Amino acid sequence: MAAEHVEALLVTHLPDVRWLCGFTGSNAAVGVTPRSAALFTDGRYTTQASEETQGARVVVAKKSALMEACAWLDKAARRAWFDPQHTSVAELELMRSAIGGRKRHHFFAPLKSPLVPKLRMVKDPAELRVIGQAAQVGCTVFEEILSRMETGLAEIAVAAELEFLARGMGAEGMSFETIIASGPRSALPHGRATQAKLPRKGFVTLDFGVILNGYCSDMTRTVHLGSASREERFAYESVLAAQEAAVAAVKPGVTCGEVDEAARSVLRKAGLAKYFTHSTGHGVGLEIHEQPRLAAGQEMPLESGMVVTIEPGVYLPGKFGIRIEDMVAVTNSGGQVLTPVTKGWIEL
Amino acid sequence: MAAEHVEALLVTHLPDVRWLCGFTGSNAAVGVTPRSAALFTDGRYTTQASEETQGARVVVAKKSALMEACAWLDKAARRAWFDPQHTSVAELELMRSAIGGRKRHHFFAPLKSPLVPKLRMVKDPAELRVIGQAAQVGCTVFEEILSRMETGLAEIAVAAELEFLARGMGAEGMSFETIIASGPRSALPHGRATQAKLPRKGFVTLDFGVILNGYCSDMTRTVHLGSASREERFAYESVLAAQEAAVAAVKPGVTCGEVDEAARSVLRKAGLAKYFTHSTGHGVGLEIHEQPRLAAGQEMPLESGMVVTIEPGVYLPGKFGIRIEDMVAVTNSGGQVLTPVTKGWIEL
Repeated sequence: MAAEHVEALLVTHLPDVRWLCGFTGSNAAVGVTPRSAALFTDGRYTTQASEETQGARVVVAKKSALMEACAWLDKAARRAWFDPQHTSVAELELMRSAIGGRKRHHFFAPLKSPLVPKLRMVKDPAELRVIGQAAQVGCTVFEEILSRMETGLAEIAVAAELEFLARGMGAEGMSFETIIASGPRSALPHGRATQAKLPRKGFVTLDFGVILNGYCSDMTRTVHLGSASREERFAYESVLAAQEAAVAAVKPGVTCGEVDEAARSVLRKAGLAKYFTHSTGHGVGLEIHEQPRLAAGQEMPLESGMVVTIEPGVYLPGKFGIRIEDMVAVTNSGGQVLTPVTKGWIEL
Repeated sequence: MAAEHVEALLVTHLPDVRWLCGFTGSNAAVGVTPRSAALFTDGRYTTQASEETQGARVVVAKKSALMEACAWLDKAARRAWFDPQHTSVAELELMRSAIGGRKRHHFFAPLKSPLVPKLRMVKDPAELRVIGQAAQVGCTVFEEILSRMETGLAEIAVAAELEFLARGMGAEGMSFETIIASGPRSALPHGRATQAKLPRKGFVTLDFGVILNGYCSDMTRTVHLGSASREERFAYESVLAAQEAAVAAVKPGVTCGEVDEAARSVLRKAGLAKYFTHSTGHGVGLEIHEQPRLAAGQEMPLESGMVVTIEPGVYLPGKFGIRIEDMVAVTNSGGQVLTPVTKGWIEL
């Protein structure tokens, strides 16, 4: 806070709250000054907050946790900063109404760049261990589900089995709605599992993640049912080469844009870049999408301790799509793949 | 829009986008004027957006869907309104930067009350049908899971079975992280399933919902393992009486606050009101928590077509908790319970 000239801070984004003080409830506002910290929540969380919270006093608000946090800041500081990306226009209005007198109009200042999400980017050893375990659960689930996939099975049934396996391995839930996209549906980058049946011939993309102790995993594999055309096989090998090039580019000091370009340039040479319609990856942690963003032109350098996804893909509308995604931890010696399950060609 | 004197509207809250034009992707901004509507998304959703979207032109944005939607509004209208509850301070900044010239400072106005969420409160017959089906899946899952619950089973294993059953009945996913809170953990109103084992004696609260065609269900039952104490039994019957009183209070014209009071007054007479630490319920639909809020003092009257939860509970820290929740559709002749599975005392 001192480095950013932030005198006092209001934190309401729940993953930030959890990261700061361990509280996992659905309603919380944390006030932080150089001298003290207080977590405000509501009556549903009286017991849970006192059990979970570390490093902050717990206050169960009578009415609004947010407004009581603001009133507390009003007493403790001359000004307070907030995260404009995770504060709604209506919340800011409420926050201001909790500040006494005319200073309410200039009491709250938006952070130029988010403070806690920036700190959350670099994971400590305990976090890396949990994220590694979550990624490992994903790998095991993938290996097990492979043997159960067959023509005629509904995508949604594959998702059900996969999620049951994950739960059986201790997952608290899934990081996002499981994507099982088969046949021409594989050309939908975000094709959530539907009643569609796995085809006799064609790709199936499986993109899923589990939550373990609050931390998300994220991985994608694309497998082929039946024999593939030369076009399909060429596209697969191109995506794989792009993915491996981007993984190889990961190391401290390399910019996010350079990692994106490592993948994109391989697909450009293969004539497939126009089908790669999204960015190469994103940070993962308590949230499934965190900083940094691995996209064209992003100048943020990677740092040791970050965990990112590397997930190039190509999508030929009406025909097929392919995406291959690993989670990669940035270490001083380069990228460490946390999802080391096979990504070579699989024909079922 | 005319009734609210809204000349043009920007919609970015995803459930609102889906309700307006059917698009289910994770990035969208819709501009609406009295004459036309356009949906802006990104390259990941080219195919999906053209397949799903109705009543709006689809534009695949080159850079930011949000900024292109704002530029479109800038050409189409003199002013545009937005939902301050679902627009972050940072987004508003971006939106303004997309408007040409000096008018950017007053082009966007916050809606006094949210327009689309208000329309979404009252469900049409097709929506009621889907919500009813989702609720029915919840009931069937509950009946099936009862026979599988036994002392020593981990809460998380109960959640896994329950979610697998739901998937098997066509659910796209769960409405929220499944709550299985057993023994003293039942005193946590939001006790998500953990590795804790079901006790020999004590309550287990099951609070869960499924998503079917985008619509959420939500229900809670609390069952008892082994024989109960008189205190436990009394508390259960009191919560049940409170819940039934609130269900009976549901009809068009009654205020949300009156429904809350119907439940609360029963618990007050039983001397348990101080353990009822949350509100009585909320609307359900495309989102698990929608308007209206059934809480003390809420003056919004119920209308035919609304779907709300009725879910009083009591939580005795360190001892036990009980919650009973139904989904109730408001009809002209009163409340229709959509989750008619037994809520009487169950001892396993």
